This record gives sequence, C-alpha cells and structure tokens, in this order.
Amino acid sequence: MNNNYSLLENIASPADVKSLEREALPELAAQIRSKIIETVSRTGGHLAPSLGVVDLTIALHFVFNTPPDKIIFDVGHQAYAHKMLTGRFSRFDTLRQRGGLSGFVRMSESPYDAFTVGHASTSISAGLGMACGKELKGERAKVVSVIGDGSMTAGLAYEGLNQAGGLKKDLIVVLNDNDMSIAPNVGALSGFLSRKLSSSRSFLGWREEFKSLLRQGSVAYKLMKRLEESFKAFITPGMLFEAFDFNYFGPINGHRIDHLIDAFEAVRQTNSPALVHVLTTKGKGYEPAERNPTYFHGVGSFEVSTGNCVSRAASPPSYTQVFGKTLIELAQKDDKIVAVTAAMPEGTGLAPFALHFPERFFDVGIAEQHGVTFAAGLAVEGFKPVVAIYSTFMQRAYDQVLHDVCIEKLPVVFAMDRGGLVGEDGPTHHGAFDLSFLRSIPNFVLMAPADENELARMLKTALEYGGPIGLRYPRGAGVGVVVEEKIKPVPIGKAKVLDQGGDALVLAAGPLVHEALCAARRLAKQGIGVTVVNARFIKPIDSELIISLCKKIPRVLTIEENALSGGFGSAVLECIADAGLSGVRVSRMGIPDRFVEHGTQKELRRSLGLDEDGIAGRILSLLGRDNHK
Amino acid sequence: MNNNYSLLENIASPADVKSLEREALPELAAQIRSKIIETVSRTGGHLAPSLGVVDLTIALHFVFNTPPDKIIFDVGHQAYAHKMLTGRFSRFDTLRQRGGLSGFVRMSESPYDAFTVGHASTSISAGLGMACGKELKGERAKVVSVIGDGSMTAGLAYEGLNQAGGLKKDLIVVLNDNDMSIAPNVGALSGFLSRKLSSSRSFLGWREEFKSLLRQGSVAYKLMKRLEESFKAFITPGMLFEAFDFNYFGPINGHRIDHLIDAFEAVRQTNSPALVHVLTTKGKGYEPAERNPTYFHGVGSFEVSTGNCVSRAASPPSYTQVFGKTLIELAQKDDKIVAVTAAMPEGTGLAPFALHFPERFFDVGIAEQHGVTFAAGLAVEGFKPVVAIYSTFMQRAYDQVLHDVCIEKLPVVFAMDRGGLVGEDGPTHHGAFDLSFLRSIPNFVLMAPADENELARMLKTALEYGGPIGLRYPRGAGVGVVVEEKIKPVPIGKAKVLDQGGDALVLAAGPLVHEALCAARRLAKQGIGVTVVNARFIKPIDSELIISLCKKIPRVLTIEENALSGGFGSAVLECIADAGLSGVRVSRMGIPDRFVEHGTQKELRRSLGLDEDGIAGRILSLLGRDNHK
Repeated sequence: MNNNYSLLENIASPADVKSLEREALPELAAQIRSKIIETVSRTGGHLAPSLGVVDLTIALHFVFNTPPDKIIFDVGHQAYAHKMLTGRFSRFDTLRQRGGLSGFVRMSESPYDAFTVGHASTSISAGLGMACGKELKGERAKVVSVIGDGSMTAGLAYEGLNQAGGLKKDLIVVLNDNDMSIAPNVGALSGFLSRKLSSSRSFLGWREEFKSLLRQGSVAYKLMKRLEESFKAFITPGMLFEAFDFNYFGPINGHRIDHLIDAFEAVRQTNSPALVHVLTTKGKGYEPAERNPTYFHGVGSFEVSTGNCVSRAASPPSYTQVFGKTLIELAQKDDKIVAVTAAMPEGTGLAPFALHFPERFFDVGIAEQHGVTFAAGLAVEGFKPVVAIYSTFMQRAYDQVLHDVCIEKLPVVFAMDRGGLVGEDGPTHHGAFDLSFLRSIPNFVLMAPADENELARMLKTALEYGGPIGLRYPRGAGVGVVVEEKIKPVPIGKAKVLDQGGDALVLAAGPLVHEALCAARRLAKQGIGVTVVNARFIKPIDSELIISLCKKIPRVLTIEENALSGGFGSAVLECIADAGLSGVRVSRMGIPDRFVEHGTQKELRRSLGLDEDGIAGRILSLLGRDNHK
Repeated sequence: MNNNYSLLENIASPADVKSLEREALPELAAQIRSKIIETVSRTGGHLAPSLGVVDLTIALHFVFNTPPDKIIFDVGHQAYAHKMLTGRFSRFDTLRQRGGLSGFVRMSESPYDAFTVGHASTSISAGLGMACGKELKGERAKVVSVIGDGSMTAGLAYEGLNQAGGLKKDLIVVLNDNDMSIAPNVGALSGFLSRKLSSSRSFLGWREEFKSLLRQGSVAYKLMKRLEESFKAFITPGMLFEAFDFNYFGPINGHRIDHLIDAFEAVRQTNSPALVHVLTTKGKGYEPAERNPTYFHGVGSFEVSTGNCVSRAASPPSYTQVFGKTLIELAQKDDKIVAVTAAMPEGTGLAPFALHFPERFFDVGIAEQHGVTFAAGLAVEGFKPVVAIYSTFMQRAYDQVLHDVCIEKLPVVFAMDRGGLVGEDGPTHHGAFDLSFLRSIPNFVLMAPADENELARMLKTALEYGGPIGLRYPRGAGVGVVVEEKIKPVPIGKAKVLDQGGDALVLAAGPLVHEALCAARRLAKQGIGVTVVNARFIKPIDSELIISLCKKIPRVLTIEENALSGGFGSAVLECIADAGLSGVRVSRMGIPDRFVEHGTQKELRRSLGLDEDGIAGRILSLLGRDNHK
C-alpha cells in the first residue's frame, strides 16, 4: 500500500486537477485508489464501484468545469474520487461516520455535488431537467449524467433517456459499463422504435404487401427473414443510441485517462444529446475487488493485504440470514413458494434460496415496480410469491402494491428488510416510512417482528395468510433469541402482552420491544409498574386489546422505528379515538419529522432516544416523574 | 345507428364467438361498435380506445381459449368489446354506473378479466408473472398482454419487457399501435443492447483499434460512421424486437379480423416471447372519434349523429380549469415558472399553458417517476416547476417525491388534481391516499383548498414558498365562489376559523369545508353551536389554533375526502396527543379502510356520509343527540 498522497494533498478543487500535466494524472489516480482502499478498509463502504471510476472521474474533472457544469453521479456510491477532487480529501477519513462525509452524493455537502442521490437511476431525469433549465436561461454550461449499466435496467432511466433523445437538449450521458458477471443490462432508448416506425414505414409497407402475396414459410419469406437477421447482427450500441438521437462516442477504455479526456473534449463541443460509452472494471486496481466485485460492491472493514473481512465478535445471525434460511425451510414443504428480488439476491438473503430453487427464484433487475406487478401475476396463477426488498426501495413500488396487489387482495408476501434506521447509508436509505405509507392501503396486513424467532413465525404466518401481507425487520443482527425448530404462525391481528404493570402502558413495534422490556424492568426496580405489549401487527391493529388496556392504564407510550407522522403510534391514536375513548394520555416515540443523517445504528437510535435509556426516560416523563432523576 | 344486435345477443361466452363463421365476424364487430357508441353516448366512457380494438378483441377471443388462456388488457379502458364477448352484453347498459359494470377490467367482475387494472403499463409484468407461473405448473395455456404504444413510454413496461426477453418464457405481447398524433413511443426492449454488446464486441474492438490509428474526422472514420448510418436506416421494429429475443409478427392491419386470426393462430404455436405488432385506428368506425381521438379518448355523454357533447346546465368552472388559468396568469409575471405533465395536458388543465408557453411546458409521457425527478432537475437550476398530476398517478412517483425532491427541499410544486373520490372511474382512480402517503414525508408542505378561489391562492402560495409543496383538489366543478382578480397567498401553516359555536368543533380539509358549513348552519337553527375550521394545511398542521380550540371545545369532528388511515384526522390526533391534551373526544369522517367502487361522485359521497346530511348527523352523534333526530 502506497501512502504517498503528494499530488492528492494539493488538490483543493477541480481547478488543481486541470493545472496538472496530463502525464501526472495516472499517478493521481493511483494515489486516489490507495486512499480509497486505505479508508474503506477501516470504515467500510462501496469499494468496487468507486475504484472502477477513478480514472473516469479524473478525466471528467479535467475537462468539465464544475460547479457551473454539472456532473451527476447516478446512485452516488461511486463518488469517492469525486469527493477527494472537490475539496474533501482532508475529511475523507470521516467517510460514512456520524458528522463525517456521506457515503453518497449530497447537495448539502458540497456545491460540486450536483444532485442528492442514493437510489439508482435518477441521473438522466435530473440531468435532463438541468439541461432544459440551462437552455431556458441561455446558459451554455454542460450537464453530464454518469450512469452504470446496472442502473439502466430501471424504468426510470429508460423514461429519462426516452425523453432526452426526443427533446434534443444538450445532455451528456456517460454510460459506465463495467461488464459485470451480472449481465450488463443496457436498456434500449426512447424514441428509437417510434422513429424507426415512421422512417421505415415504406419498407414495412412493402414487406407487408409482399408477404400478403406469399404464405408464411415460403422461400421468399424466409429470404426476407434472413435479410433482417443479417442486418440485426450489425446493430451496435452506437447505431442504437444514434437511432435514439444521441450522438454516440465509444466504446472507450475507462482506465485510459488520456483517451477519456480526448473523448470528453470532443463531446463537450456538441450541443445535442450525447452518449459516451465507457468500459470499466469494477474494483480496478485492487486485485481482491477485481476478482470478486460483488463482495466488494459494498463491504465492511477488511484487511488490505488479503481483502479478508475483519472478523468481529460473534454476534447472533442477522434478520436477513434468518429470513433466507426460514424461507428455504418453508419452501421445501410448499412448492408454491417463489421468491422475487430486485437486483438484491445477496442483500436480501435470497442467494441461498436461489441455489436451492433456481427455477423458483426471480431476479428482476433494479426494477421494483416490475418486481411487484410480476409477483402479482405469479399470485394470480396460485403461487405464493415472496418479494424480498429493502424498505427504502419499497417506496418505488408503492403504486404497484396498492393497485396491482391490494385491490384484488392477491397473496403476495413482502419481506421488507432494512426497516427503520439503516446506519451508515443515511437519509436516502433509512426505512423510515414503510409503516406510514403501507398502513393506509386497504387489505394490506402489516407486521413487525420483535426478534428473529418472530420473523420466522411471521414469515410462516404470511405464507399461510392468502392475501397481501408484509413484515418489516431491521438491518443487522437479531436480538439473539433461539429460532425455534418448529415454526408456529402468529394469530393475525393479535398483539402480545409481555410484562404487566399498572403505571404505564407501552405499546411497541419491532425489536424496540426488547429495549422497552429492559426499560420496564429497570423501572420495576424503582417500583414503577409498566405493561409492555409487543404490537406485532401495525395493521390490523389489535384494537380490542389496546382499548381494554387503555381503559385500565390511560398513560400510554407508543414506540416504533418509523416516522411519527402516520406510523404505528398514529394507528394507536386512531384506534383509541375510534373507540370513543377520551382521557387517555398518549406519548409517541419514533423517528421525528426530518431526514436522519448517517451514523451507526446505535448512535442514531441513541440520539433519537430509541433505546433503553431513552424509553425509560420517556416513561418517567409520561408519569410526571422525570424530575426524580 | 344500427340497433340490430342479432349476433351479439347470442354471445354468452367466447365459445360462441368461436362457433361463428369467420365471415360473420365483421358483422359482429359492427354490432359491437354500435352498442359501444350507443351506450357511451349516454354513460360517457373511453370511446376511442374501445372502438379501436373491437376487431382485435374478436380475433383474440376467436383464437385463444380464456379463461385458461389469459388476455391481459393494459390500462383496461379499451375492454368494452371484451366485456360484451364474455357474458356482459346484457348488462352493458350499466357501464360505469353505481352497481353496474366497471369501465375497466376487474378480476372480481368476471373470470375472463385476467388482471385488475386502471393504471397504465402493468400488463407485461403481470403477464410475465402468469407465464412463469404456468410454466412452473406445467400448464400449456397462453398468456397474452395487450398493450398500447402510449403505455410503452412508462418505465414499468420497459422493465417488464426487459425481463421477458431475458427469461424466454411463453408470453405473447400484442402491441396495439394506434399511431396517434401524439408520437407513438414504443420503448426499446430488455437485453437488446446487452446482447448486442457481447455479440458485437469483436466488431467494436476492431473499430476501436482502427480508430486509435486515426484521428477523429479523418476520411476513414467518416466512412465508418457512414457505414453505421446505412445499417441504422434498416433497423425495423421486427429486427429490434427480435434482437430482444422476441419473435416478431407484423405489422398487421388491426381492422382485418382475418389477418389477425391468422397471425394469432401462428403465434399460438410458438412457446417463447412473441410480439404481435398491430396497427389500429383509435375511434375506428365512428367518424367523429376517428377525426378527434384525443377528445373521444374519455368522453362524457354526446349526441351520436354529430359527436357533439350534450350540453349541461351551466356549472362553475372546474378546479382543473381554474388551476390552468391561474397558472398562466402567474407564469406571465414569472418566467421561472415551468409546467410538467405525464401525458395529461388536457386532463390536468395544462393545454392552454402549453399554447402560451410552449418552451416552458414539458410533457414527459406516461412517466410520473421521470416527471418528478426531471422537475427536481429544473428546480436545481432555479426554476419553479409545477408538476400537474392526478392524485392516483402521484402514487407512481412516491419515491421520487421523497428521495429526489424532499431530502434537499427542492422547490417543486405538485398540483394534484382528482384528489378524493373521482366517481365513475372507480377504485383504481380515486385519489384516496395522497394526504396519507405525502404527509409522512419530511419537508413537504401539503395543502387542500376549500374552493376554487383558495386553489388560486394556494397555487400562488406554493410558487412563492421555495420548497416542496403540494395542493390537492377534487375532480369536477368548483363550489361557485368568485376567483378574485388579485390573488393573495395564504399564510403557511395557518388554518382559518369560519363559523363559531361552542358545542362542537369541526376541522375540515378541502371542499368538504362547505358541506360542513351548511351542516353547521342547519344545526345552528336547532340551537347547536358549531365552530367550523378550514384546515387549509394538512402539513404543517395549525397545531396552535387546533390546540387552543380543542381546549375550549373538546368535542371534535375531522372531515376529509381521504383514507382515514393516516390522513388529516390522524394528523389532528397526533397534534392533540403531542400537546399532551387528553379528554378531547375526536370523531373522524373520511374514506373508510376499503377500496371504494365506482358511481357518481355525489352517490359515493352520500354513501360515505361525506355531505351536509352526513356531517350534520355525525355532529349530533358526537354530541350524543342523535336520538333527537
């Protein structure tokens, strides 16, 4: 590992990149790679994507003039080099740490960050908006959207590209094609066929007329077909993009900075949609990452010399692992269970399922909308699809859940991972809203397991239920309870009373139930009796139990790791109001009405009071005893 | 108009279509068209799309064997012929009326309706799910997705097509290409470029090598370019779809039933992805609709002989019209105002804006996700984009609002039309959830004007605000108040007290404020004093006013035309709980936790108690006086 940052230390802004000799740029790239590897080996982060675009990023900043020019990094997890070249080298050690640099691109972090991002496939749409804006203002600055081939599988990218070609604005799309083992999915572009439809109408008309004279299968027809085939074989990306009214430049070796600079200099002279096709290697320059780019896509801390992950103290299996394992067990006994992921087989824990049941596993690409509607189709055919998805990405499929699944009560199971605070990925990735946006949908049953054993039980419950149903669980390790051998479902709509006490009533959803229990037991030692209820169901909420308990204990605290606006606590308030109960004092704990920045899960929970101490304090406050310590 | 339905009357199911001689089918088509025109001229409905696919629908039912085979109509508004051929001719007069046939395709209405639909572009995803399901079950039945070229502009369709080609399942996509004046936007398909990337790597490599020897602009380079151009010109839809691993059949005249049947017979023999390209005329067979398919896309009642709309009693301008007119006035004074629609310039009232300010108007196609992120890009450049969108379609852009607009507080204005019950379009189209799913998003300001004048004021408020902000207003005519010449903004976060009285407190959002006022005045005559508050803001809610009023009048009724789960009433409950107030009795009126079927807006509101009578009754009930009449 080279710890010489002589060039990098002197880069205060992109102007300093431009002032370097071209010949010095490969050394700058080497220094950036060293710094990325050194830092991410400690902090964790998106290693392979960021290593892949170091040369590309240098070339972009060498040619373009940000911030007047805009460089929009799609997803934003590949922007480490960009951060170092735009005045953030000295703070790079704080990457993904509380109060430190974001792991993504954030407008609020730097004027060089053109668009805030964390979810995939927004860069073309945003860039096109900026390009249209610049044209309306008469500004001649450039807009560059840097998008990976993976992000191109999303409908949003297609929608953007579709309009970009049509509008003929001054937009440069850099296609970062890293040719992964995951098949590069470069979507086709807007306008292509429609333009072809008109321009080739005469040809088609002729063909049609010709065909009507012949039966299918005749020699002439086959000849026609062969003619088409031969043309087809010559369709290149360049022809395709150009057919969509993009000027095509490439393919260019994405690790030859000199070639990249030449291409960007050329493309900068154009003023209509241009696509620069750049071939990169994910993980470039760090052999373990080049060998295993999937593992090193997003990684925890690791040993630089070997790439081996730094072993941690043994912790309970993660919710993700328990989900994956349980689903396999259940699927072994029920061949109607199938699984769907949107490009996240590893992250959602479905990878082992895919090995066990390859024909019952569907990876739809970065396409949450399609994934949900596709699952609805499987449900129509009598299957029990399990859509495993991160809570934050479920936001992309809201309409499909509502319109395609819930109106007809189709039995689709949503296994929502990363519900609540996800930690280092920050505000774009917290699963802070699912309880709110899902519980307003009719016919949806919404559960939150309190621990990994309950996750297993709720997964079984969901698969037996026969309608739209979801369970949401957090990122990270379970609480450490044993997952029972024989999985028993939980009764739909029933909460569970844990501790009993007459001073306060705590209604908690998800693993915070355990923090609440600890808080209650601490208070019990002070002579304060707290009833703790594991809500289990956000919807249908256990009104009967809640009302009967509220009548006895009218001092209620609700706890959830979800937005307070419209979440579980709000459901409790509705339930109390609808029962005509008044005189119940309800205090609510959860995620406040703002976006929560990054930090460790523990830090963030502590800062929001979502731990034992915070809960104990709130109970005391609810009882008017917060002055007594 | 021919009212002879001799053939149609004898069609009880598609089996009866199959039993007809091929020669009789054009007459059957004529009878269906007559019936559609006759009925829709009275009931209103989607005339032009349904007329366009009569022949196609007959051919599909002649060849395929539903319900084992599945025919999935995208959007579902073109399924009138399908309804008549599947046992619903005798009930066709009840189209779009309360208790009658849905204007869309509904699984709950008929076993021949393969998938419930109302929003565009779901058919390929759902069909692919069904095809995968059938293959897993070993069933040989066919799945046919019928999708229009317009629906192909949506990312969801692209995502589905993308995977369909890749999976090589037995799925037939019928592309209903009606070649409208709106440019036919047929998206390109999954896998195309990625396949080309690999198959043409050698060609590209050769080209790249060649190029590195030459400077750009040299003769050889230009020659290369010209070679590519010449190939490009020969790319046909067939070649494109086949490159995406679809077998291509077509283009076929969509009004020649015999040709269609031949094509479907042929395609039925295949068992890998097939695309049948059918050219149709929107409005076919009814001259006024062929001439003006946009007007006759979805239409109210009209005179059959002329196509003229049946004039109604003069009513106040619609909210849509007031929005469109006001936006033009404001835009005349502020050149930073731009407007965005997702394929709805007419429906959202933006058509006149588009004429006034063509360069400041953007129609993004059926692409709500892209539309919102595109608007975010415009906002970054200092513009004030107004996204005019139906509430129900806003569901498609939930993540983009949250992630692309609200995290950075970008000043995008959402003008959400069709908020609340939309009437005849039914459960897929009610704007019943926006208050719930939007109010949980941090940084979003959410307003509901009580009348058309307040709509104008709130639009001005929104454009002056400088952050993410939305106003939602209903379908249909305003309440009839004068829209003031000089538009005054409303203060952010402030509600407005209208009538005062000490017995009950009514907090209402949107035009139901006026129903609440009428109810209050009726009760005043009975000596019951009701304070009526126009909430104006769902978020930030006017906590200060609400708390101070609740302290004085602890019997509260909240009223909204939105789901009760997580909506405005829920926000009021949160506000009261967070203030530590107990002893306030809150009753909530709104849309219950189920999908509401179709009917007129008036019928639906009445059935849910969301009118003067219902509100008066609920106030009495809240006061324990409902026995007194």
